[in-house]
Amino acid sequence: MEIIEKVSQMQRTSEALRASGYLIAFVPTMGFLHEGHIELMRTGKKHADKLVVSIFVNPTQFGPNEDFNQYPRDTEGDLDKSLSAGADIVLFPPVEEMYPEGFQTEVLVKELPDHLCGLSRPGHFDGVTTVVAKLFNIVKPHIAVFGRKDYQQLAVIRRMVKDLNMDLEIIDVGTVREADGLAMSSRNKYLNSEERKSALCLKKSMEMAEKMFKQGQRDARIIKKEMESLIRSHPFTDIDYISLCDPETLEEIHTSGTEVLVALAVRVGKTRLIDNCTLGQHDNSD
Amino acid sequence: MEIIEKVSQMQRTSEALRASGYLIAFVPTMGFLHEGHIELMRTGKKHADKLVVSIFVNPTQFGPNEDFNQYPRDTEGDLDKSLSAGADIVLFPPVEEMYPEGFQTEVLVKELPDHLCGLSRPGHFDGVTTVVAKLFNIVKPHIAVFGRKDYQQLAVIRRMVKDLNMDLEIIDVGTVREADGLAMSSRNKYLNSEERKSALCLKKSMEMAEKMFKQGQRDARIIKKEMESLIRSHPFTDIDYISLCDPETLEEIHTSGTEVLVALAVRVGKTRLIDNCTLGQHDNSD
Repeated sequence: MEIIEKVSQMQRTSEALRASGYLIAFVPTMGFLHEGHIELMRTGKKHADKLVVSIFVNPTQFGPNEDFNQYPRDTEGDLDKSLSAGADIVLFPPVEEMYPEGFQTEVLVKELPDHLCGLSRPGHFDGVTTVVAKLFNIVKPHIAVFGRKDYQQLAVIRRMVKDLNMDLEIIDVGTVREADGLAMSSRNKYLNSEERKSALCLKKSMEMAEKMFKQGQRDARIIKKEMESLIRSHPFTDIDYISLCDPETLEEIHTSGTEVLVALAVRVGKTRLIDNCTLGQHDNSD
Repeated sequence: MEIIEKVSQMQRTSEALRASGYLIAFVPTMGFLHEGHIELMRTGKKHADKLVVSIFVNPTQFGPNEDFNQYPRDTEGDLDKSLSAGADIVLFPPVEEMYPEGFQTEVLVKELPDHLCGLSRPGHFDGVTTVVAKLFNIVKPHIAVFGRKDYQQLAVIRRMVKDLNMDLEIIDVGTVREADGLAMSSRNKYLNSEERKSALCLKKSMEMAEKMFKQGQRDARIIKKEMESLIRSHPFTDIDYISLCDPETLEEIHTSGTEVLVALAVRVGKTRLIDNCTLGQHDNSD
């Protein structure tokens, strides 16, 4: 496994791989890898000849009051896990390699970020689309793999790729969960044992929504109200949003049709957790 | 010469050319080609194996009160000229192929557009960077050629390419002029014969600036004032801006150092004309 820090070296390497006819799969990460990332890597490896994983905690997608500085890091562990998962190259660029002095360009998706997490994290998705556009130009993949856990991120990136005619395929992978149902996230590390228990309310509330939907409930307000009560009954929780929305436009819906995305963000203690599922589609929630 | 209308067909064609080891040069245009464009094409052809020219009048870089609908078009003439100049492929996409329903992504350079033409054409450069980013992803060139006539456009595109790690080289070509010095532009067609005479004031005022600079004048205000008087002495003229600025940041300078860009925009009748030169560098002005 090769470790590359320089943009120009990654580009030369990718050009050479493409010229030799290799298919390149790419998994961009912020490191502190868990089983969810590994699943992305396995999927990438399955679809391509060469797997490139990037580890870059991108400062521009964190708000001024967010956890950029505390964001957990474990470079050695990450490299071990990448190797085990079959990565051929790990791209590990320093911040100044990605954002040199004078940097002033942004890639913006304009409407999709005005929903869900975008509302409480202004500028977050602009940081995501900009860094992902850069990484795509650096890695030149045929395929890029993203998790459905970050559903809005996936939707925003798909939109960017389509709108800017980026010639690559986005593959999505279902959320990987702990045995008790908590969606894997690098931020789970922040939870103390009491909060860890409460954190199950996200998955439980989605299961309740699925059950109500299966029993014929189509009024989004009623489903949301029940989810809200369930979550509030767990200590240390503070709801950021619960949304029943259109899976493509992310616009809030009031009467559920056939395709409904349930997405939610809940603070448990100081840790902001997100999760989502698609109602009526069993295989989509995990 | 092949004419391609579909994005996906252009991408497949470029992938195949790259896989065969061909170097691709790209000249994006809005059509109504003149000798300035031909010079870009010749330069592209000189640096690469295959020359792709795009003809696309991009609606998103025109303001609501600008000349999108009247912008001159001459498809047959353009194809003839492209063929003569050695183009291998002309990309000629319909607007709905470039901006299908739901389109909502923009590429923005944030600081460079806040100068010169950007001030009187809000949103113009956002339209330019977005469409050029798309075209680069569609044509996948190794080299792209732009004219120094649109100096700010060139600077903004160079910035975008650098910031987003687009793996291609930007080559610039000096302004091509009519025998009497008027910079070639598709918009010159709008000028009636009286206005055509007045339009020479742009080049004349730059020559005066060069002369003053050579004679040791370093006060930008004095140079600008003289240019202003010269232009005002020509009928039908209305100055949009005269700027002496840093060639890289485009920031206004007051006391000229060694490197100074003179850039100006003047309305002659209803036609907005631009021109520029670099003081002290003879070969740069044309």
